[in-house]
Amino acid sequence: MLDLPFLPFCAFLGGLGFVCMAFVSAWCQHWRGGFALDGSAQMFNWHPVLMVTGMVVLYGAAALVYRLPPAWRGPKFPWKVLHSALALAAFVLAVLGLVAVFRFHNDHGTPNMYSLHSWLGLATVLLFSCQWLAGFSAFLLPWAPAWLRALYKPVHVFFGSTILMLSVASCVSGINEKLFFSLKNGTTEYKLLPAEAVFANTLGLLILLFGVLVLGALARPSWRRPDADSPDSCQVPAPLWGYAG
Amino acid sequence: MLDLPFLPFCAFLGGLGFVCMAFVSAWCQHWRGGFALDGSAQMFNWHPVLMVTGMVVLYGAAALVYRLPPAWRGPKFPWKVLHSALALAAFVLAVLGLVAVFRFHNDHGTPNMYSLHSWLGLATVLLFSCQWLAGFSAFLLPWAPAWLRALYKPVHVFFGSTILMLSVASCVSGINEKLFFSLKNGTTEYKLLPAEAVFANTLGLLILLFGVLVLGALARPSWRRPDADSPDSCQVPAPLWGYAG
Repeated sequence: MLDLPFLPFCAFLGGLGFVCMAFVSAWCQHWRGGFALDGSAQMFNWHPVLMVTGMVVLYGAAALVYRLPPAWRGPKFPWKVLHSALALAAFVLAVLGLVAVFRFHNDHGTPNMYSLHSWLGLATVLLFSCQWLAGFSAFLLPWAPAWLRALYKPVHVFFGSTILMLSVASCVSGINEKLFFSLKNGTTEYKLLPAEAVFANTLGLLILLFGVLVLGALARPSWRRPDADSPDSCQVPAPLWGYAG
Repeated sequence: MLDLPFLPFCAFLGGLGFVCMAFVSAWCQHWRGGFALDGSAQMFNWHPVLMVTGMVVLYGAAALVYRLPPAWRGPKFPWKVLHSALALAAFVLAVLGLVAVFRFHNDHGTPNMYSLHSWLGLATVLLFSCQWLAGFSAFLLPWAPAWLRALYKPVHVFFGSTILMLSVASCVSGINEKLFFSLKNGTTEYKLLPAEAVFANTLGLLILLFGVLVLGALARPSWRRPDADSPDSCQVPAPLWGYAG
């Protein structure tokens, strides 16, 4: 395999994450009427922006913290705190994103939690909350014994990648669903592929590309901390598919 | 990590794959009017059944061939042939599944290829066709030099897991989309969560669970062929996230 250096890849990934956030914001601002906090469709628009920013981009950044070469040297604790803080920020944005859609539904008398997208999305956020709490308790609080950390580490790693995969699937199904809802009754129908549809479909593919690249980076052996199999590594691993099990 | 034996896990996974196929068939038979080959909505019903059977269940079986303990011993060639044949069968079912939806659209004057689901699904099948052809050329035909096989193996492995992830995301967005289409005009609306919606949402979650478990099994180090790093392993690896890159 070609010896690709991590930092240029990481810069590209950062750019791609920024493009995803810019695309989802531009979609909501330009075609869906912008943003508000009043329970209207403009309040709903916070939902895609916050979910993509939190559950995909910030989550991906949190997952990759241990792949940064500076994280390979010196004490691990500051990197644990950074990993945990980025994940917490991602979680807070996800909760605010859920508040936006529940408030919008409630104000319009629309039932909550009926579509497959909603089931999958809420399951993903709930799984993420368990993952964060368990990771914090096992790896940041001082009382967890080494054997428990060692036992839990591959589970944390496995669910780390799994949750990102579920987030991406949630985003794709959500964008698809939103376009079917919005592109009718007075606008060009989705099936006639207006500019908004091309733009939002492209957003969906960019989110998928971002997710696949993060999962690929996590799985690449040469980008892991060199001490990944030492006892020290039993503390706060980055979510990583490749070392599950 | 608990020392889970592969074969019981594999039997569970086989049962789960069977349940996914049974659920998607039952959905189309019981609620969507059954099957036909006449370009009607009954012809469309082949689409979800063939895509789930091909791109998820058979694809997952193909990916796991090298995890079977008997595949660890003796010549690798028969297992390569099995891996390749299962993947080809999955591809043929996927193409037939595409024929079903294109024929349904064409007979009803519905445009093709406008939704994010369709873009993602077609991209996944096209990627799979490239993956199969490149794998066949590099690992089954005799002319590929060892250095080319060694170079291509991690790429094949990476795209093997990526394509499964994309397939699962396609299924979830497709089920979501189909329920919004079907559950209106004379039936109980999707948002009122009739029995069909609960059943098909559950199908979506079962497909996700199947995909996550296959990806987890592929990534589990102790289930890999013991010679995974020997020169011999440069021939037809199972698609595997964990050793990408």
